[in-house]
Amino acid sequence: MDQLFYPKSVVVIGVSENPDNLARIIAENLFEFQFNGEIFLVGKREGIFLGRKICTSVDDLKEGIDVAVILTPAHAVPGILEACGRKKIRWAIIETGGFREYSEEGAGLEKEVLRIAKKWGIRIVGPNGIGIINVENGFIVPFVKLKRGTVNKGKVSILAQSGGVSLAYFNLLASANVGIAKIVSMGNKLDLNEIDYLRYLIQDPQTDIIGIYLESLERGRELIEVARSTLKPIILHKANTGEESKLIAKLHTAALANDDRVVEAALKQADIVRAKDFRAFGNAVKILSLPPMKGNSLVVLSRSGGIAIVAADSAEKHGFRLFPLTKKFQDRIASFFRAKVIQPTNPLDLGDLFDFDLYIKILDQVLRIKGVDGILFQHGATGLEKEYSRTLIQKVKELSSRHQKPVALCYFTEDEELAFIKKALDYPIFTEPEDALTALAVSRDHYRKQNVMRKKPPSYPVDHGRAKALLKKAKREKRDLLLSEAFELLQAYGIPVAEYHVIYRKEDLREVMKKMEDPVALKVISLKISHKSDMGGVILNIAHLSGAEEAYEKIRRLTRGDRFGILVQKMVLQGKEVILGARRDPSFGPIVLFGLGGIYVEIFKESSLRVAPINRSGAEEMISESKAINLLKGVRGEPPLDIEALTENLLRLSQLMIDFPEIEGVDINPVKVLEKGAVAVDARILLT
Amino acid sequence: MDQLFYPKSVVVIGVSENPDNLARIIAENLFEFQFNGEIFLVGKREGIFLGRKICTSVDDLKEGIDVAVILTPAHAVPGILEACGRKKIRWAIIETGGFREYSEEGAGLEKEVLRIAKKWGIRIVGPNGIGIINVENGFIVPFVKLKRGTVNKGKVSILAQSGGVSLAYFNLLASANVGIAKIVSMGNKLDLNEIDYLRYLIQDPQTDIIGIYLESLERGRELIEVARSTLKPIILHKANTGEESKLIAKLHTAALANDDRVVEAALKQADIVRAKDFRAFGNAVKILSLPPMKGNSLVVLSRSGGIAIVAADSAEKHGFRLFPLTKKFQDRIASFFRAKVIQPTNPLDLGDLFDFDLYIKILDQVLRIKGVDGILFQHGATGLEKEYSRTLIQKVKELSSRHQKPVALCYFTEDEELAFIKKALDYPIFTEPEDALTALAVSRDHYRKQNVMRKKPPSYPVDHGRAKALLKKAKREKRDLLLSEAFELLQAYGIPVAEYHVIYRKEDLREVMKKMEDPVALKVISLKISHKSDMGGVILNIAHLSGAEEAYEKIRRLTRGDRFGILVQKMVLQGKEVILGARRDPSFGPIVLFGLGGIYVEIFKESSLRVAPINRSGAEEMISESKAINLLKGVRGEPPLDIEALTENLLRLSQLMIDFPEIEGVDINPVKVLEKGAVAVDARILLT
Repeated sequence: MDQLFYPKSVVVIGVSENPDNLARIIAENLFEFQFNGEIFLVGKREGIFLGRKICTSVDDLKEGIDVAVILTPAHAVPGILEACGRKKIRWAIIETGGFREYSEEGAGLEKEVLRIAKKWGIRIVGPNGIGIINVENGFIVPFVKLKRGTVNKGKVSILAQSGGVSLAYFNLLASANVGIAKIVSMGNKLDLNEIDYLRYLIQDPQTDIIGIYLESLERGRELIEVARSTLKPIILHKANTGEESKLIAKLHTAALANDDRVVEAALKQADIVRAKDFRAFGNAVKILSLPPMKGNSLVVLSRSGGIAIVAADSAEKHGFRLFPLTKKFQDRIASFFRAKVIQPTNPLDLGDLFDFDLYIKILDQVLRIKGVDGILFQHGATGLEKEYSRTLIQKVKELSSRHQKPVALCYFTEDEELAFIKKALDYPIFTEPEDALTALAVSRDHYRKQNVMRKKPPSYPVDHGRAKALLKKAKREKRDLLLSEAFELLQAYGIPVAEYHVIYRKEDLREVMKKMEDPVALKVISLKISHKSDMGGVILNIAHLSGAEEAYEKIRRLTRGDRFGILVQKMVLQGKEVILGARRDPSFGPIVLFGLGGIYVEIFKESSLRVAPINRSGAEEMISESKAINLLKGVRGEPPLDIEALTENLLRLSQLMIDFPEIEGVDINPVKVLEKGAVAVDARILLT
Repeated sequence: MDQLFYPKSVVVIGVSENPDNLARIIAENLFEFQFNGEIFLVGKREGIFLGRKICTSVDDLKEGIDVAVILTPAHAVPGILEACGRKKIRWAIIETGGFREYSEEGAGLEKEVLRIAKKWGIRIVGPNGIGIINVENGFIVPFVKLKRGTVNKGKVSILAQSGGVSLAYFNLLASANVGIAKIVSMGNKLDLNEIDYLRYLIQDPQTDIIGIYLESLERGRELIEVARSTLKPIILHKANTGEESKLIAKLHTAALANDDRVVEAALKQADIVRAKDFRAFGNAVKILSLPPMKGNSLVVLSRSGGIAIVAADSAEKHGFRLFPLTKKFQDRIASFFRAKVIQPTNPLDLGDLFDFDLYIKILDQVLRIKGVDGILFQHGATGLEKEYSRTLIQKVKELSSRHQKPVALCYFTEDEELAFIKKALDYPIFTEPEDALTALAVSRDHYRKQNVMRKKPPSYPVDHGRAKALLKKAKREKRDLLLSEAFELLQAYGIPVAEYHVIYRKEDLREVMKKMEDPVALKVISLKISHKSDMGGVILNIAHLSGAEEAYEKIRRLTRGDRFGILVQKMVLQGKEVILGARRDPSFGPIVLFGLGGIYVEIFKESSLRVAPINRSGAEEMISESKAINLLKGVRGEPPLDIEALTENLLRLSQLMIDFPEIEGVDINPVKVLEKGAVAVDARILLT
């Protein structure tokens, strides 16, 4: 892909002398940014632009130009691409809109484009985007006029679906004075998509931080895998999460909506930082360019007691621990103060100090403390102090780097001064404590996850053969699993099921009832009756044989002469109900989920989910982030329940989903969590 | 208070020729901003500063100077104030720190200061703040150097506890190009506090919008009442909400923490806009300077489809309805377009249009639609477009004003251009769709509340005399209410209680059991046993007389010969459990609360609360914002429960709390909500 980002020659197709022509701007940008390769121009009519001849046909070009940038009416694109193929061009950036996102006809055109590309081995960026920006070599081809000097070369690369958003990020990073390496506007992602570009950026030595803006995520599972393969931080801004945005996203870049809860869980698992909006993205980029926050202990230094309070509120919200500064620390810094007006609190109020050298000494002392993982330094200056503050900030930068701890600098001053500082000093500046603390939390979580989340999932010994046989039979008969088969499958995978027996004759009831403690439940086993509870196929709380026989008869009548069996199951009266489940997401593949059982499910509509396979800490996290954890830890002095057993069931379910792609979904509802153990009471297993 | 904000003469006390002297800066600011009154200087040593003599004693001044601004060591303040009193100075702004927020000794000094002030009738601003800023007359007395030209005269006034935060707001508003009327840094609020200043600003013709920053709120109930008395929007940034910030706030401005959930509810009730951070404050100020959003229907216009999607996500999050643009609308604007590349969707993607006159025409058409309440206009420009955009923004301003609908303009461009636009055009500019939509939601909610929330609470006919007698008796005996008295009190206020009978002899059980349907519960009535359930004083599910007699004996043994009664109550088996409660907040007075009952309380730790009295819509809101609403609406096909009856109970409880200040708290737990009716099953009522 180096050829695409560092071409030696490029042809811009669609250029005319008409001042309204957009492809002209592409050429202008290449000149403006002093692109270091050869430039050719092709248009409908002959002409001269920027001293270059406009050819009227691709066929007039020499062979083997590296990249074609195409901005013509959509209907012309297939013919042009065909010509490019003949001329051995291997990369085409198609900026033209009016394809799949616009109409049926456009969708047809797109298919044609893809067919031609495959035929000639051409790889395509777009269509319907603004192409590529590579700050390093000046290969900058948006059809929007950009100006040199507004952006610095740097270490952040951006992948964005939409052209407008690409530009928004361009401005955002420029305004934050964060240097850019590469930007790709991926458009409709007809051929190349985020996974391809991401793979390239991960090995690109110019890129240290990767930002991605997406409206749709088709290859979610791959994204996770690729993201896990690198230590470069990845920040994702995923839009198109609501009902209202679905339609417009489809019209915009032909994007289909994802299940956002799955996206959320998957990103967590892959340690991808999720930015909810543009500002959060900017904050994340800023903080990830500093040393990481390796723990949870924060010190707040502030020139204003009031703002220190705002910061302390926010620190608590983000789960930071304010590191207690000791008497010893106070003694050490006491010598710096002209008077002891300052108390050794955290936040440390510097309000009564007017000598900035002291700030630096104090900051240095705080950074030296072993237990301190990061600093919020809230500074403010007006008038003459502004100049001293420039030196101060330079020192802050040095100290953060020397101690390898992040100092998030939040600076209140006039706009003009801020603009100056940002340009002059290569250090991220925040303007609000809330932003600075959000950013520090991103750094902390990112570091923590890198160290915890990459552990392997466990592999339990299971009866794989038995499971396979059960699934094969159902598959052959083109049906889902029967209740009894579902139970057998769970047991084959070591997930305990509440004691049950299967009978096919009423006469067998007596013997079965003798074996079991009452009360029991009778459940129908039938191909015809899938929602057995709603149909009356489940009868609970049966204490005696006579009751059981009566229930048997009721169920028999229900089946209307069809073949059926009866599952007699011991009622589990103790414990609390939860749900374990699994399904397949079109983008992310197998998902496991956990949540409150019974009526809670409907009241609180909450469950936690993860992409399978999960490791132990993932399973534990799932359980502890659900409200169900409060139920399981024991309420009102009840003893705590067996969360360990539940965790193991969840891990085993994850393993099952990975082993058998033919399972579409599993619903173990409820699982009863007991003081010792956790058993499945009912289950449905659907096949693909 | 006009004399304080518009003094004809002021004396600055604490000035010296020493360049490190801070009181000098106060005088400098008065000169810089061309304060239109007489200025006197007092200091320890004689001297000349800015052409004025520094007197060495207040006693040397003429009588009747309007305001003294004091910045000397704390210990000198009482003496100076005494001298001010003798010279008939009636207003003192004390900027000195080192009082209650610093030490025990400082607290003593503060008391002394207050005593002297009372003696002479001096009203005090501060201590421990940076005083007052009045942009109109140049009465600007912070001890931090400010520069003319950085801020415009305008309609926003700010009350802030902390000096640093006052300055932060000063910068924030300057940077957003929002004009300022007055700022008060209230400091320790020894004498004057937010209520006093707020009353003044409400009648101040220079002030249209009031912003308040508080670390503590001692007179919460008054704040609500004062806020309700005006239509001027009030925005509150309340800090000191966390555990960690409590200590630092106390050290900073001697602020005590409030119960933040009560604050949250109270502000909602008073239609005070709560800003969670500085940015939110800025957003609120910006939007409230535009015409209000009178409904929930939004149209998003965007130059970028991608950003339109981000905006649509955010619009949904904020509960907006995207107004569907019709075919008719499409036809009306079709004539403007050179081609039909644009579809009549909402968000409306303007990406393919490059003529800004069309933008204005389309915006005008959209604003004309009756059902549309507000617009998010997402614009972006680079290069030459920037200049055309200036005209565009001017037109946006005119259209918003002409149609009296808010157009939140979100503009992506380079920093320099943004800075220019902000200075040149008096129209609020947002830089992120998220900010713009948050702001529009503030406008919508503010308008809606103004129209809905000011309805009176109902006044039910109740047996006030009976209630009074019950409370008087308990009060005289210095105890809380007995269970039976609590039930009687609720009944006197029309809150139904599940059928019960009180007996004092075992022999009466038989007759009572005959009268009631079983099962019943036996509950002890005793002065000694307050937590009756935990002590075994409640025995449930009694079906027969023999069981009842056994239970009676058990309870009798529990009371160990003390006087006791037994309450025999019918068990309410149907319905769902909720809690109604009430208590008194030190700042806001009587509070009512509602939440899930039973084990849910502990699992979900959620309840909704309001300051009493509440009106009907307040009570309905309380119920519907609780998770309990899902339970009450009927789950799994169960019939819906009597939310109307529950609402009435809540309103009656509110009335009870207002009528009897001697009630400290009420806990009706559970209330059973039935298909018809809602009855109290247990209750505790504590007296002050």
